[in-house]
Order: sequence, then C-alpha cells, then structure tokens
Amino acid sequence: MRDEDALIAWLRDQLGEDGAWIGDDATSLPDGAWIATVDSQIAGTHFPPALDPAVMARRLLAVNVSDLAAMGARPRWGLLTVAAPGDFPHRRFFRSFLRSARHVGMRLVGGDLARQAHPAATLTLLGEAFEAGRSLRRDTAQPGEVIWLGGTVGVSHLGQQLLATVDAKDWAATATWHDMTRWLDDDVFQERRVIEAPRTLWPSIRRALVRHLLPRPQLRLSAWLIEHGGHTAIDVSDGVARDLHRLCRKSEVGARLFDDAPLFPAWARPLAEHLGIRPDLAAWTGGEDYVLLFTLPEGVRPPIGCVAIGEITAHRGELAFADGTPLAAAGWDHLDDGPG
Amino acid sequence: MRDEDALIAWLRDQLGEDGAWIGDDATSLPDGAWIATVDSQIAGTHFPPALDPAVMARRLLAVNVSDLAAMGARPRWGLLTVAAPGDFPHRRFFRSFLRSARHVGMRLVGGDLARQAHPAATLTLLGEAFEAGRSLRRDTAQPGEVIWLGGTVGVSHLGQQLLATVDAKDWAATATWHDMTRWLDDDVFQERRVIEAPRTLWPSIRRALVRHLLPRPQLRLSAWLIEHGGHTAIDVSDGVARDLHRLCRKSEVGARLFDDAPLFPAWARPLAEHLGIRPDLAAWTGGEDYVLLFTLPEGVRPPIGCVAIGEITAHRGELAFADGTPLAAAGWDHLDDGPG
Repeated sequence: MRDEDALIAWLRDQLGEDGAWIGDDATSLPDGAWIATVDSQIAGTHFPPALDPAVMARRLLAVNVSDLAAMGARPRWGLLTVAAPGDFPHRRFFRSFLRSARHVGMRLVGGDLARQAHPAATLTLLGEAFEAGRSLRRDTAQPGEVIWLGGTVGVSHLGQQLLATVDAKDWAATATWHDMTRWLDDDVFQERRVIEAPRTLWPSIRRALVRHLLPRPQLRLSAWLIEHGGHTAIDVSDGVARDLHRLCRKSEVGARLFDDAPLFPAWARPLAEHLGIRPDLAAWTGGEDYVLLFTLPEGVRPPIGCVAIGEITAHRGELAFADGTPLAAAGWDHLDDGPG
Repeated sequence: MRDEDALIAWLRDQLGEDGAWIGDDATSLPDGAWIATVDSQIAGTHFPPALDPAVMARRLLAVNVSDLAAMGARPRWGLLTVAAPGDFPHRRFFRSFLRSARHVGMRLVGGDLARQAHPAATLTLLGEAFEAGRSLRRDTAQPGEVIWLGGTVGVSHLGQQLLATVDAKDWAATATWHDMTRWLDDDVFQERRVIEAPRTLWPSIRRALVRHLLPRPQLRLSAWLIEHGGHTAIDVSDGVARDLHRLCRKSEVGARLFDDAPLFPAWARPLAEHLGIRPDLAAWTGGEDYVLLFTLPEGVRPPIGCVAIGEITAHRGELAFADGTPLAAAGWDHLDDGPG
C-alpha cells in the first residue's frame, strides 16, 4: 500500500458517514464545540535525526497549530507523546515545547513517554473556534473568488534540500543535539563549512533553514479571515499545487492561476539557482510552507504580505494558468519516496 | 535523563497548577465534559517488530480504553496516527482497529499517516464519563477500604517473556506479518516449535501470549464501580506494586496486603515454573495486565472474578504484607532498561 490517496479513499469508504473529516486539516468534533487535530514529527522522516530537540518541539507544535489555523480555530489543550532513546534530552524538549505552547495559549493536559531508538513525538490539539459555530472549510470556494496565499512559498523546500545535502555529506561527523541551534545563530553560522556555498548566500541559507524548521502558523490571519467573512482555507503542507487541487475538488470548482504571481520571494532566487532548483517548481510543489491558502470575494483585500495567485472558476476540476498550461497536482505523497 | 519519575516530577513542577493531570491514567478536560488520554504502541518497544498489524491495532485501542476505564469513562472519539514503512499493510491494521473501535463505541474523528522504518501508532481517546461529573480517581482511597484487583495478574508478564525468548532465538527466521495470528490459532499453534516447551504447556503458552498481546480493558467493571459508589481506581500497567504505591501516594494512605491473596492464576503456575519466573514476582511487579486496581468500603463485593488483595491503612506511605514484609515499588520504568 504505497499510495496515500488510495489508502485514504479506502479509509473514507470504510468509515462511511463518519469519514467526512478525512482529508481536512482538522476535525470539528461531533458536539460542535471543539476542533481536533493530530500530527507527528519523526526523526529521519520530518527532520534530520540530530536536530536540536528544542527545534523539534517547536516544529511539532507549529505544524499542529497550522492545522487549527486552517480551520479558523485557536489551540486550547494538547496531549503529547514523546518516544525517544534513553539519552534524549527530554527537559530541553519540554522546556521549548511549553514555552511555545504558552505563546499560543495551549495548555498541556495529557501525555505519555516511551522508548524508541530515534526521537518522535505526536501532538493532539483540541482547539476552539475563533467564532463559535463558524470554521474555515475546504468545500466552500465559489467561482469568482480570488485565491490568496498567506505569504510566499517554496523557501521551506530549499531549506529541506539543504538539510538533505548536509545529511548526505557529513552530518554524522558534525552533528550534536545542539548543532542546529548553533547553525541558526547568525554569529557562528558563517564560520561553519558544512554546507558548501558562497559567503553571499549564507544569510539566505539561514533564512531557508529557519523557514523549513520553524514554520510560523498563521493564527492571526486565520482570525482575520473569520472576522472578515472568509469561509474557505487550507494550510499548504504538501505544496500549493496539491493543496489547491484538494480545495478545488472539495469545493467542486476549478481555478485560473495568474502567470506572474510572485509566489517565490526574490531574496531566495540566488540560493535556488545555486541549488539547481527552479523557483516556480519549489513554489508550486515544494510543500511544508504552512502558510494559509484561502479565497476571498473580489475586492476584499487580506492583510499585507498575502499574495493573490489566481481565481476560482466554475470549471470543476480544471486548474490552469491564464495561458492554458494545466497545473499538475504534483505535491509529494507521504507514503511515496519523495523528499523528506 | 533516564528516570521517568524524576522527569515527570520535573514536568509537574514546570506546569504548576496545570500539571495536576500528570501521573493519572487520563485527564478530565478543564471544561469537565470530556476525559482524554493518549498512548502509543511502538514495534520493538511494546511488541515484537513482526507482530501482525491487526493485533497491534487491537492492543493500541485496548491500552487506551483501559486508561479511560480507570477514570470511569467510556471511549467516544479517537484521533490516530500511524507511522510505518511503505510496505506496512495499512488496511489490515485499520480494519482490525475499526472493528474493535465499533465494539467499544469509539468513532475515529481524526488521524495522520507518516513514514517510519518500524511501525508505531499513537491513539488519543476522548471519553465520556459513565456518570456526568463523576470519575474514578487515584487520590480518594480511605483507610479501612478493601483493595481489589479486577482479575488475576502476572500472566501478561509470562507472555512478554515468551515473546522476548522468540525474538532472541529465531524470530527473524520465522516471522511474517501474519505469524502471530497463526500462533494464536489453536489448531496450528501446537505444531510450531518456535518456543521450546513440553506439549502440556502449549495451551497455557497460548493464553499467556493472548493475555499480553490482547488485554481486555475492564469497561464493564468501571461502569459497575461508578454505579455502586466506587471512587478510587487505577489500571495496572506498570505492575501492581508500583501502581498501588502510586495510588497510596496520591491518596496519602498506606496498605496492608494479604499474605495469601490469589493474584496469580493456578493454571499458569506450571508455565511460570518452566520459564523460571516466580509467580508472586510476576504478579506483583510484572505489569501490562490492564486490570483495574480499586478500593471499596468493607462489605461491598465487586463482580465475580475480582480478587481482594489487602486493605487501605492510615499509615501514609507504608505498604507491607500482614507479616511485616514491605512491598517494594519495583515495577519497571519506561525509560529504564527493563523488560519490554
């Protein structure tokens, strides 16, 4: 069973009416009061094995909070499991996790510890809608609405590729639990030669690593959308192309994409070129950006920093650029041998 | 950080008032309506790597439901993550999980799939109290109450030791995903020679493996306790001794244990002898029994099958047998190199 979508379709079939939640970022619990989501971070799958546990903890919380943001909810309670080897610095992990949790208003209300050869953690979040009885959904996009991104995308993919390079070259020789923190510290970052790149690229390398490892869930934008009558959103975890396809399929609509939308930030172009990665490909299919993809009626402008990328059409299932080029749903499949 | 109790104490300290849930089987959510718990099952940690995923799925649900039973709650909603290699038979896992879930009245409302070299799964359960506003707790045991077990204990430990033997000897040569199911099938079980033991012991070997791999959470007993005024319970996961110490510490009481309580079932004695395991040690410290340990006022008799093992005393922290021998809290520590 290597195809995640086929498995998920099968599971939906098994669950019948109970499976309506499948494919959403999070679930409105049947009594309507709470929104729940669950996500894992696994060493070797979602991040390099030697990543600082403090960074792993923040990433775990961030990807879960992003799922709630995509539903129009804020985190309230969390249940956390940590499976790790005996010498894992649990306190460093928990200190970082609890600090970030306080920052987003989440209380840890349950958990479990277990032994495992490599570190992994799973967080279940229970969230509360910003406005009772309302949530952002995937199946409510209307023809004529403008499609927006909560920010630029594609840089996370560069960060991921950079980490993969390190891993292959000399990760084992340089890695300690705290190496990643030191990398992310401007002062010493430039002295390290683990990633071979011209000195001029170091600042953007650092930004790409941070973008990938410490995504910033868009809770504020989510609240803004709820406040301003937004109804449709998804968070970009598997690539804009793939997630937009999902949104259009759920809403039974199509999309016409602008040819020149600035999805990929200008500052990261030299780095993309150095890595041999096409910026447009990184932007549309890279994934793990954790910005919101949402629609708004024409004329309604979201906060500054958001990027308009196209508009919803009534041509169900047809996603194409203005020049007619179709947009393939080429995000990566969690169960395939994709990047990550 | 190798000592789970020290880590947990530290974590409770970090959380302050928010940490009241730590050390309980499950958590009453702050709004009082729901009880939540989370637990993982990890190949190589909680079960042999080649275990049938159908058995793994049922075990995952069982250990979580047991935590709710210990709180006086029934399962309602579940969020499930599965991390497994690409060739993992997901459908077999989910079929088994969903069948068991229906059986206990749980609906799957969320989940996530990820890649990992060995199978692991985490389940978060949201439960509903059998009686609104009431739950079973660990801190309410009163001097004079009788201490009961929901059934015999120690056999799960034999099953665990049997599995460890197989693992060491020739697991790799014999294991397929479905082997365990075949073992658990009476007809073919006796023909296999993976575990060396006299033929007369095969029926008890099978029972021990089933007891360990497929524990039966005591939901009905939990409901009975709530209905008959019970207030104190814990489920035995880390061994009766350790869990009774926990209960007494939380309740600020002591315990006098009966010298001759039939904790260990007679049918399993020959098997214990064959394995060189002392039945009393298996019973008091073996763990993973998932029966309820609870207290009742003198004269109140629980359903048939329960075993009285002692009585609560006012001697805070003193746990001893009638002859004065102290009961050590020698269950195994999840983060130590114990069995499992």
